[in-house]
Amino acid sequence: MNISKFVAPEIIFGQGSLSQIGESAVRLGASKVFLVSDEGVINAGWADLALHYLRAAGLEAEVFSALTTNPKDFEVTQGVEHYLASGCDALVAVGGGSPTDVAKAIAILATNGGKLQDFEGINKITHPLPPMVIAPSTAGAGSEVSQFAIIVDTIRNLKMSIISKSLVPDIAIVDPELLKTKDALLAAATGLDALTHGIESYVSLAATPLTDIHALKSIELISRNLRRLVADRTDMEAGTDMAMASLTAGLAFSNAILGATHAMTHQVDGQIDQHHGETNASILPHVMAFNLPVCLERFRDIAVAMGEDTAGLDLESAARLSITAVEALIADIGLQKGLAQIGLESKDIPMLSGNAMKDACLVTNPRNATQEDIEAIFHKAM
Amino acid sequence: MNISKFVAPEIIFGQGSLSQIGESAVRLGASKVFLVSDEGVINAGWADLALHYLRAAGLEAEVFSALTTNPKDFEVTQGVEHYLASGCDALVAVGGGSPTDVAKAIAILATNGGKLQDFEGINKITHPLPPMVIAPSTAGAGSEVSQFAIIVDTIRNLKMSIISKSLVPDIAIVDPELLKTKDALLAAATGLDALTHGIESYVSLAATPLTDIHALKSIELISRNLRRLVADRTDMEAGTDMAMASLTAGLAFSNAILGATHAMTHQVDGQIDQHHGETNASILPHVMAFNLPVCLERFRDIAVAMGEDTAGLDLESAARLSITAVEALIADIGLQKGLAQIGLESKDIPMLSGNAMKDACLVTNPRNATQEDIEAIFHKAM
Ligand SMILES: [Fe+2]
Ligand SMILES: [Fe+2]
Repeated sequence: MNISKFVAPEIIFGQGSLSQIGESAVRLGASKVFLVSDEGVINAGWADLALHYLRAAGLEAEVFSALTTNPKDFEVTQGVEHYLASGCDALVAVGGGSPTDVAKAIAILATNGGKLQDFEGINKITHPLPPMVIAPSTAGAGSEVSQFAIIVDTIRNLKMSIISKSLVPDIAIVDPELLKTKDALLAAATGLDALTHGIESYVSLAATPLTDIHALKSIELISRNLRRLVADRTDMEAGTDMAMASLTAGLAFSNAILGATHAMTHQVDGQIDQHHGETNASILPHVMAFNLPVCLERFRDIAVAMGEDTAGLDLESAARLSITAVEALIADIGLQKGLAQIGLESKDIPMLSGNAMKDACLVTNPRNATQEDIEAIFHKAM
Repeated sequence: MNISKFVAPEIIFGQGSLSQIGESAVRLGASKVFLVSDEGVINAGWADLALHYLRAAGLEAEVFSALTTNPKDFEVTQGVEHYLASGCDALVAVGGGSPTDVAKAIAILATNGGKLQDFEGINKITHPLPPMVIAPSTAGAGSEVSQFAIIVDTIRNLKMSIISKSLVPDIAIVDPELLKTKDALLAAATGLDALTHGIESYVSLAATPLTDIHALKSIELISRNLRRLVADRTDMEAGTDMAMASLTAGLAFSNAILGATHAMTHQVDGQIDQHHGETNASILPHVMAFNLPVCLERFRDIAVAMGEDTAGLDLESAARLSITAVEALIADIGLQKGLAQIGLESKDIPMLSGNAMKDACLVTNPRNATQEDIEAIFHKAM
């Protein structure tokens, strides 16, 4: 018996779709919404625009933005106190993966009580969550459609993966306009995160035909558009395609889970406050090389989706083109860095690898990995 | 501003997944379920198996199966009386498109009152519906994932399209095992219906990148597997692929709507109790020929998805291969019949065409069609 599950939120997509945020929250029964955002998004004016639409729909709103990249458990604790004191009855996030994951984590504690660590892993959430509407401002995290929330445990210095169907937001509003105000580095890092989602979910042990079509579409769109968007964030053709890529990659990994790259970056991100997409860039090609022997056809499909010409090549050579294509993309968008450059020390590798072995994302990696394997990959990525 | 929406139910897929039906209904808060099915499905034992799983999950159940192919408005009226008298608080369908659409229609009237005609068209449903779990027994209708319910109005003798997001079931349970007990004709007709969904949604004016990937996947899977499944319904490799094809075609047309083929078959199906898939087979190639000039690239994509070799061909020749491929498939599965053969009379064509002009599905047909155009297509399909 091989039963798979697939969940997705209602998706509203397109330039100008942020205008639907008020009506969407009203439709879910909200009267006062807790708007989670961050400094950058607020300064760019998107939170105010969202507030305008929320108020125009007759809603009250409270803004919360006391959070950082790679959001921390104590930020969530503060957020949930604020939420409960505010009398809000719905959560809205306008921002990248960090505000979105904070909104999800606040939702968990608001109705389930306890502390975040209680919900780490798969399907630990028992009580229904408040309504959630998410409007992503980056094309990468995919959290607007996923059943994941990733929060740093500041005691253990690692990222906890909380995975549960109830973390799929009710409505995802994907408006490519919001990408315009990002800098080139953020566009590159978030886009590379989306690529990692597409690739890891396509080779995942839990992949299904439904996740496959979303994963391959994301890989194809990213290969064709990420360089353009990094070069010019106001290029709305590239932005629209990258927003769709992030969304399809999110649907793929939400339902097929991820692999060793994320199991490893979750540990690094818990130590060093570097954008998660940059950490992925350092590690992904090495994990691909490790996984390649056990799923040659899948890596050939990835090479083809990236536009590589595999005509006349034997299977392994065709599959290897996926790695060179990813390396070329990483170099072209300026993310070609080793982990040592971002401050990782070799002496931490055994500890990071030990934690990676316990990460939920490692379970679906296509090639079985021992702690020694993970340590070896970390060393190659330095 | 070009905003699109995409909705999908939670999907549980795979051989043996019917076993999840009880737990799924419980998860939605059901205590007593109204199980809608039909004679054929009951005789094949699937309704009893579903009842077993429902009762094992602690649920009471009431069975309703007083319905026909191309289900009628008065059957729904009887069903809703039965539902309201039974004290049920959730709807479950185990069957093809007919029991599913009847379950949806009962759900509408149960909480909204009135008569079905009040809800014809788009977004006319105002009150939330009872929880719905759908387990399709055919690979074709796609109603298990769609926001459509199609019911015959026995006064006007036509099929009404009721289209609303609240008609998307909460959970779709797609178990390919259920396909084993169908006869060859039903496998052929339902599969051809799914192909029509894939093709009409791919060329629809409301197509989006998200619906496109689902539409193309369905077309590809049907081209590779329908002949096999018609030849041997116990071929579970073909059955699993056809179940996935029906599902992806359903997600595509639910969100991109359909076209002239369905606008026309809805009228024929209201007159003649022939399987909807057989009517599609008579009409689809002629509608494709009508639409082809305005979307050559899309029809070329369809030809490629059907496995046609378009190398070296000019665009129009490549596009035309989609029509010959569809005609070949229809012939191979034994559905090559004109509308005259199924009992349609030429004198009815003006009336049927007039009604087709008012069908909601015509709005998204890629080529604008006058009543004269529709009449001409009907004559070609005789
Ligand atoms: Fe990620
Ligand atoms: Fe149909």
